[in-house]
Amino acid sequence: MTQIVPVILSGGSGTRLWPLSTDRSPKQFLALVSDRTMFADTLKRTGDASRFAAPLIIGAERHAALMEAELGSDEHVAARIILEPSARNTAPAIALAALAAGADNTVMLVMPSDHVIRDLPAFVTAVDTALPAARDGWLVTFGIEPTGPETGFGYIRMGDALKQVPGVRKVERFIEKPARDKAEAMLAEGSHVWNAGIFLMRADRYLEELATNAPEMDTATRTALSGVNLAARLIRPDAEHFAACPSDSIDYAVMERADRVAIVPVACGWSDVGSWDALAKISSADAQGNTVVGDVLLLDTHDCHVHADGIMVTASGVEGLIVVANGSHVMILPRGRSQDVKNIVEAIKARPED
Amino acid sequence: MTQIVPVILSGGSGTRLWPLSTDRSPKQFLALVSDRTMFADTLKRTGDASRFAAPLIIGAERHAALMEAELGSDEHVAARIILEPSARNTAPAIALAALAAGADNTVMLVMPSDHVIRDLPAFVTAVDTALPAARDGWLVTFGIEPTGPETGFGYIRMGDALKQVPGVRKVERFIEKPARDKAEAMLAEGSHVWNAGIFLMRADRYLEELATNAPEMDTATRTALSGVNLAARLIRPDAEHFAACPSDSIDYAVMERADRVAIVPVACGWSDVGSWDALAKISSADAQGNTVVGDVLLLDTHDCHVHADGIMVTASGVEGLIVVANGSHVMILPRGRSQDVKNIVEAIKARPED
Repeated sequence: MTQIVPVILSGGSGTRLWPLSTDRSPKQFLALVSDRTMFADTLKRTGDASRFAAPLIIGAERHAALMEAELGSDEHVAARIILEPSARNTAPAIALAALAAGADNTVMLVMPSDHVIRDLPAFVTAVDTALPAARDGWLVTFGIEPTGPETGFGYIRMGDALKQVPGVRKVERFIEKPARDKAEAMLAEGSHVWNAGIFLMRADRYLEELATNAPEMDTATRTALSGVNLAARLIRPDAEHFAACPSDSIDYAVMERADRVAIVPVACGWSDVGSWDALAKISSADAQGNTVVGDVLLLDTHDCHVHADGIMVTASGVEGLIVVANGSHVMILPRGRSQDVKNIVEAIKARPED
Repeated sequence: MTQIVPVILSGGSGTRLWPLSTDRSPKQFLALVSDRTMFADTLKRTGDASRFAAPLIIGAERHAALMEAELGSDEHVAARIILEPSARNTAPAIALAALAAGADNTVMLVMPSDHVIRDLPAFVTAVDTALPAARDGWLVTFGIEPTGPETGFGYIRMGDALKQVPGVRKVERFIEKPARDKAEAMLAEGSHVWNAGIFLMRADRYLEELATNAPEMDTATRTALSGVNLAARLIRPDAEHFAACPSDSIDYAVMERADRVAIVPVACGWSDVGSWDALAKISSADAQGNTVVGDVLLLDTHDCHVHADGIMVTASGVEGLIVVANGSHVMILPRGRSQDVKNIVEAIKARPED
């Protein structure tokens, strides 16, 4: 039985965890929840050589040095990095990976590089559960069992169980990020899970569905890789041809339209760490309800999340704050308002140059 | 008529405005309320050459370079700096200044280097009012008309007016920092003012009272300056003899015991800037009640005092905070709790070494 090829998506460059995450140093390259970067934690997740082949990484050309540094000099000698010359969202990125993956029936485990999975055994069990269906040609998604009526995630409505594969169900419908009342209704109804953007599927099946549902993407990605050495450490698609590729997510371009899409629900301590509030929620709080990282001194302070990077943060007599500081910026928000980060980032961009 | 000699006390090394003020860079050397340091603002206050002679500055040997830098290379060529080899509080410091001031009947205006006086004309008028009494041998203090029942200042109870000098009253009693109820009672009673630690008096009269009330200080300071060139730019008292001098404030050692102590009440926008709350109080607030210094971006934020030094501070959705940040430390407190700074400084000192 051939091993699964981990496909690690590292194209993100969001600023939802600003001031630590920036376009120059996106979230996946930060050590936010352990003493390793989220990228390193993701790599480690597929370190079991009996199950997984060398990983394929896909990220932006401008982050090449960061990604190479993550791979180290000798640990991941067979890993390859596909350098996207421009950002075209996940559907084309995964197409490049599928084309580079090799044999048609290779099974890929597609994962973002900036998610947390606390319970690795539960996740591995879910992958094992999904594997027969994937080998059989199903595009398998992993659905996170909801812990609340979150409005920040897409949902998936699960349908009937696959008769031939225990633990796997058909996908009935993908649902976009819902309003609060709709999220509550889905939670009450059951059979709805969060869409984590993690997939197990054969490379040829993905490309087949792409050719059917997004033929321009199929053509553009094949052309962009034409004549490129796919065995090299750094794989560089042709910039001009890749620029001509439409930009879309795997959900919109493929999953919502494809035949034979299945789902394995899993509770594995997953988080997309999509905001400082999300990070605070998955961090271990002390007796005062504070979650701290770095050089932090708190007196008479409660329910605060404080992240200090290269600077010391002190507080006395405050509560319910998110405080993030590095050598160049300090940001202070009330807990529950970490969506305000985007307003701050926009306001800074909008300031007149000095 | 000879000019008044400004005597600028720069011995303070407090940390009440930590993390900006530190022992290495005390408050007087920071630009907290204007674009000049408080030391420079104090120097400027006595810049009128028709009234004031060259200043005498007294501070710690370890701050010599900071004080010399404040004087600049050519503006204050006749200024002198007395470098205290050890800290002995204000009574001995002023004794050194009195001995260095020259002619016995020289009048000295003794001022801390780290106070704010917003209304300079009002202050100069008070000095003019006090001058005849000082020339006549009175030790004149300046009393700040209270704006509230502050518990952080000493008070002075004013007695009868001096018959021969309009606007000057006898000091009836010095009162230590009071409890809240006592402060309120004094405010209601009237005739009580804050002790600002600013004095106008003849050098010989001060030394006379010192010899009477604190003879060991008189002897130790005279011995420490024996044989020292008092005309030099930098005056260095003998370390061993000065170390033998008792340590006490001018209030305790001299003023509370001396004959002929008078007071001129004045409302001159004075502040000792003794805490971040005090600094916030004298800063100009914007329409949202925020007072900011440095690179600060606030969204939906109210009644905050934010001081950014060499770092950018951003906040959204918070209110009533004091935030102070420099390249090495961030400190966050609720307004009204700036006395917590000392707890933070102590807690940092108490931490085990890394």
